[in-house]
Amino acid sequence: MTGFSTITAFEHALADLPAADPKAQAAARARQAELTKPAGSLGRLEEIAVFFAGWQKRERPRIDTARAVVFAGNHGVTAQGVSAFPASVTAQMVSNFESGGAAINALTRAAGLDLHVVPIDLDRPTQDFSLAPAMSVDECLSALSIGAAQVDANLDMIVLGEMGIGNSTAAAALCARSFGEAAAAWTGPGTGVDGAGVQRKIAVIDRALALHGKVPRSAFETLRHVGGREIAAMAGAMLRARQLGVPVILDGFICCAALAPLAVDNPAITDHCIAGHCSAEPGHARLLDRLGLDPLLSLGMRLGEGSGAAVATHIVRSALAAHAEMATFAEAFVSDRQ
Amino acid sequence: MTGFSTITAFEHALADLPAADPKAQAAARARQAELTKPAGSLGRLEEIAVFFAGWQKRERPRIDTARAVVFAGNHGVTAQGVSAFPASVTAQMVSNFESGGAAINALTRAAGLDLHVVPIDLDRPTQDFSLAPAMSVDECLSALSIGAAQVDANLDMIVLGEMGIGNSTAAAALCARSFGEAAAAWTGPGTGVDGAGVQRKIAVIDRALALHGKVPRSAFETLRHVGGREIAAMAGAMLRARQLGVPVILDGFICCAALAPLAVDNPAITDHCIAGHCSAEPGHARLLDRLGLDPLLSLGMRLGEGSGAAVATHIVRSALAAHAEMATFAEAFVSDRQ
Repeated sequence: MTGFSTITAFEHALADLPAADPKAQAAARARQAELTKPAGSLGRLEEIAVFFAGWQKRERPRIDTARAVVFAGNHGVTAQGVSAFPASVTAQMVSNFESGGAAINALTRAAGLDLHVVPIDLDRPTQDFSLAPAMSVDECLSALSIGAAQVDANLDMIVLGEMGIGNSTAAAALCARSFGEAAAAWTGPGTGVDGAGVQRKIAVIDRALALHGKVPRSAFETLRHVGGREIAAMAGAMLRARQLGVPVILDGFICCAALAPLAVDNPAITDHCIAGHCSAEPGHARLLDRLGLDPLLSLGMRLGEGSGAAVATHIVRSALAAHAEMATFAEAFVSDRQ
Repeated sequence: MTGFSTITAFEHALADLPAADPKAQAAARARQAELTKPAGSLGRLEEIAVFFAGWQKRERPRIDTARAVVFAGNHGVTAQGVSAFPASVTAQMVSNFESGGAAINALTRAAGLDLHVVPIDLDRPTQDFSLAPAMSVDECLSALSIGAAQVDANLDMIVLGEMGIGNSTAAAALCARSFGEAAAAWTGPGTGVDGAGVQRKIAVIDRALALHGKVPRSAFETLRHVGGREIAAMAGAMLRARQLGVPVILDGFICCAALAPLAVDNPAITDHCIAGHCSAEPGHARLLDRLGLDPLLSLGMRLGEGSGAAVATHIVRSALAAHAEMATFAEAFVSDRQ
């Protein structure tokens, strides 16, 4: 049983998060100090090696088996005119993923990632969350479990991404509700709506926050009321990855918004996650700051699909290659500091 | 004849820089607009594709043949106690490069870069530039030509890096002299000297700037008076790469400092260069700003060897993969904006 069959099962899992292995981390740190370079001179690459050592529980972590999963879902809130693209594009892009023509296909090929595309009930959009809860309890549990099922214990890391026309509106709503703030701080152009479109998104989200204002602000109820199927699936995958000790590379604003309600309930949920990049979507930098995550890349990307996380995979591979393959001062007969 | 046999030959080359191909750039931009993603949503990746199209003079640029060159040189100024490591480490690290145990070995293997290691007269350090010009005219021309000889017309890109105990002092001197400023703005810990060490570096550089104050501030004379062999070699490689239309991925502070005197004489020299990363060495961010370059990565690295540029190569490969491999809206039957 890899999924979350009840709200209680989900909440227990989120409350009971395993930690990284401090011995493997210490061994990796000791190795870094012996490698032929000035101490600390590989910067974040050194931190990444220690991070992976802790979760993979070995001094020299590896990435032999790595997966990118793109979850797709449709959103009833698109009826409010919140996106620059028609809702039919979600299914069209899933076809594009399946035939290999999307950005994430090229980027996962370049990064040596096995790509899984997981469309979830595209013919059944969530309810328009400005009028009703986005999902029933069973629908939300099902999406969480679909996400969890994508994580195998043999994975050395996983990249999580999404596709869903309208989901930057859901993501902004998740952040606003999670942190108890107004929508304006979290709402941006998404795939490219203009200023009036952003104002429309803000108004829709503020109506939704008011409508669901009395609902408990737990991770589950927030995901259920203003999230979406692909978003809940990412949250389920993040939680399952933690149970299995699989490091997660987070993508952009929507992906990190799936983590936000979980992090409010248990801030330690971010410990096995690396922020792959900082998106150009304005809410993302703010969200990374709230989550205490320092992104590896900042390349002005704002596509989703796991694209930024896929590019960040190369940074991780570089870090682990240097960590595993470099000679020590003693091995190379190089003098240390004078 | 690929080198620079006279000062005049070098200066003519620097004054007469070929431009990128605007037609190939326009074709690449047009292709980007048709690919299955919101316009602009791949951020810097889109800019990189257009940049490479312009220099490679084709709509779909490729990286089939790519080289990293690490030049190494020794510096007489180490007699002034400016480095945390003994000068013998330069040759020891060259041996380490040659036997495959350094960071740049692991990072170039991971990035699919062919690594060339080019030690230049390690048994003949430059003169201590706080007492005399670092190099004679012939020595500087020779180093520029050794650099130029490492660039072949069939390369799709080149990464430039360096090794040389003491060369962060030379780099700070190059920047201070190029931009007509005091040493303090450009001097940092290098491989890891403490605060007193930094003050010692500043004092040494200020003495050198005063000593050579009457010498014309041309690119050649600045490289010759306060540079080093590996630094002049990088400058020669940058200039030759431009003549051949080969894009250059710049590494850290020392590498970019080799570009500084050239950029003062002809600011267009940076046009075929991408800043691979921003180093933790404090002068680097300042230097990138002066050069008008926006680094791809900022990972707190400060190792040199071409290490940051090697990691940045993955960003370039990702950009070109997306550009070449993605389907267009028409090919994938995906609807464009509503």
